[in-house]
Amino acid sequence: MRYELYYWASIQGRGEFVRLALEEAGVPYVDIARTDGGEDRMLALLADDTLASPPFAPPFLKAGNRVIGQTANVLLFLGERHGLAPKSETGRLWTHQLQLTLADLVVEVHDTHHPIASGLYYEDQRREAKRRATDFVTNRLPKYLRYFERVLASNPKGPAYLVGARSTYADLSLFQVVAGLRYAFPNAMARTAKRYPQVMALHARVAARPRIAAYLASERRLPFNQQDIFRHYAELDR
Amino acid sequence: MRYELYYWASIQGRGEFVRLALEEAGVPYVDIARTDGGEDRMLALLADDTLASPPFAPPFLKAGNRVIGQTANVLLFLGERHGLAPKSETGRLWTHQLQLTLADLVVEVHDTHHPIASGLYYEDQRREAKRRATDFVTNRLPKYLRYFERVLASNPKGPAYLVGARSTYADLSLFQVVAGLRYAFPNAMARTAKRYPQVMALHARVAARPRIAAYLASERRLPFNQQDIFRHYAELDR
Repeated sequence: MRYELYYWASIQGRGEFVRLALEEAGVPYVDIARTDGGEDRMLALLADDTLASPPFAPPFLKAGNRVIGQTANVLLFLGERHGLAPKSETGRLWTHQLQLTLADLVVEVHDTHHPIASGLYYEDQRREAKRRATDFVTNRLPKYLRYFERVLASNPKGPAYLVGARSTYADLSLFQVVAGLRYAFPNAMARTAKRYPQVMALHARVAARPRIAAYLASERRLPFNQQDIFRHYAELDR
Repeated sequence: MRYELYYWASIQGRGEFVRLALEEAGVPYVDIARTDGGEDRMLALLADDTLASPPFAPPFLKAGNRVIGQTANVLLFLGERHGLAPKSETGRLWTHQLQLTLADLVVEVHDTHHPIASGLYYEDQRREAKRRATDFVTNRLPKYLRYFERVLASNPKGPAYLVGARSTYADLSLFQVVAGLRYAFPNAMARTAKRYPQVMALHARVAARPRIAAYLASERRLPFNQQDIFRHYAELDR
């Protein structure tokens, strides 16, 4: 069985968290929307009223007959199947808890450029975006980064990974969030990175993992861009 | 062992999703912040640098020595332990997927009155709130309610519950979201409720469950109020 990943063809977005997990697991998958007619197939599935467990939005994963939605939920599934999370219930829940906190951060990043409505252009909410981004960079971003720094620093097995002594999908996701933050807020990140040495070291450590490094160097890794969740607007990153 | 729930003492908030699950499960628990000195104990735990798995924010649950954070993650734990979710992996993931979609909706509800910064007063982001709430009521709310209506209507076991033929924590959460939406947006909900008959019937069905009915009638159920996630501002609900 080959997994089918359904996500927008032109952005990393939330699909990227799933892509990173599939790449690290080394399992075969098809990124459907990037195949011929794939985005139409995705939209057809989203509109299919006969599905018993319809996803609300991309990304979702087809695993045989099963359709699994919600990024963190897909990672919960893949984590268990492919050794990307501990086997113990405690470790599994802790990994998932970290993923959900990263998901909260991703929503807040998105809303820095879309604080009013995701259906409106950035230009139509620019003034509000500036206010929201200022609060994000000043208050929220440090709170999140401090938290992950603390989690790494207080890991009884050492600061190499978020959970225990081995890499999990939460590490891959924290890598992705740091990469995205560096793209969107290069000034803020350059100013403050030294306060979060463990987080930055984890980012580098994940980037150097053989399968992740190969993926990042491949055409499968889309570049960050201005249609994505992580966007760079100079006026939001003074 | 008695569970300890840590959440703010004066609001339903995200803690309410956990309270409803604990009440429906009929398991003993202490709502710590509502005991003497409890809120201080919660803040002390949040600041405790020696915790190996620190929560980012309330709510969190203490189960013996374990501290479990993130609302949906706590429900994943309780669901498995107390029969509030199916035993099969497919059913468990589907229930969790629905919970995560409800969690996304809850963030959007919060941001109708706090689109700029959760650290600022409503009065300091009132104009932005009006724009965001208009988009929410016009576009986002119908999209979510249509989705849950469709999930109920396409459940192969019938529309009584979201997942299979039995109640799960996702039903309790959808009940809570509808209750909150009715408090926050009474006009919008009155106008559109008839389009979502299965969702409204589910709300009534959950409210009538013996343990939930007893809970709702008790002093343990806090009233909705204007410090909470669901807030009623007439100007946001034309």
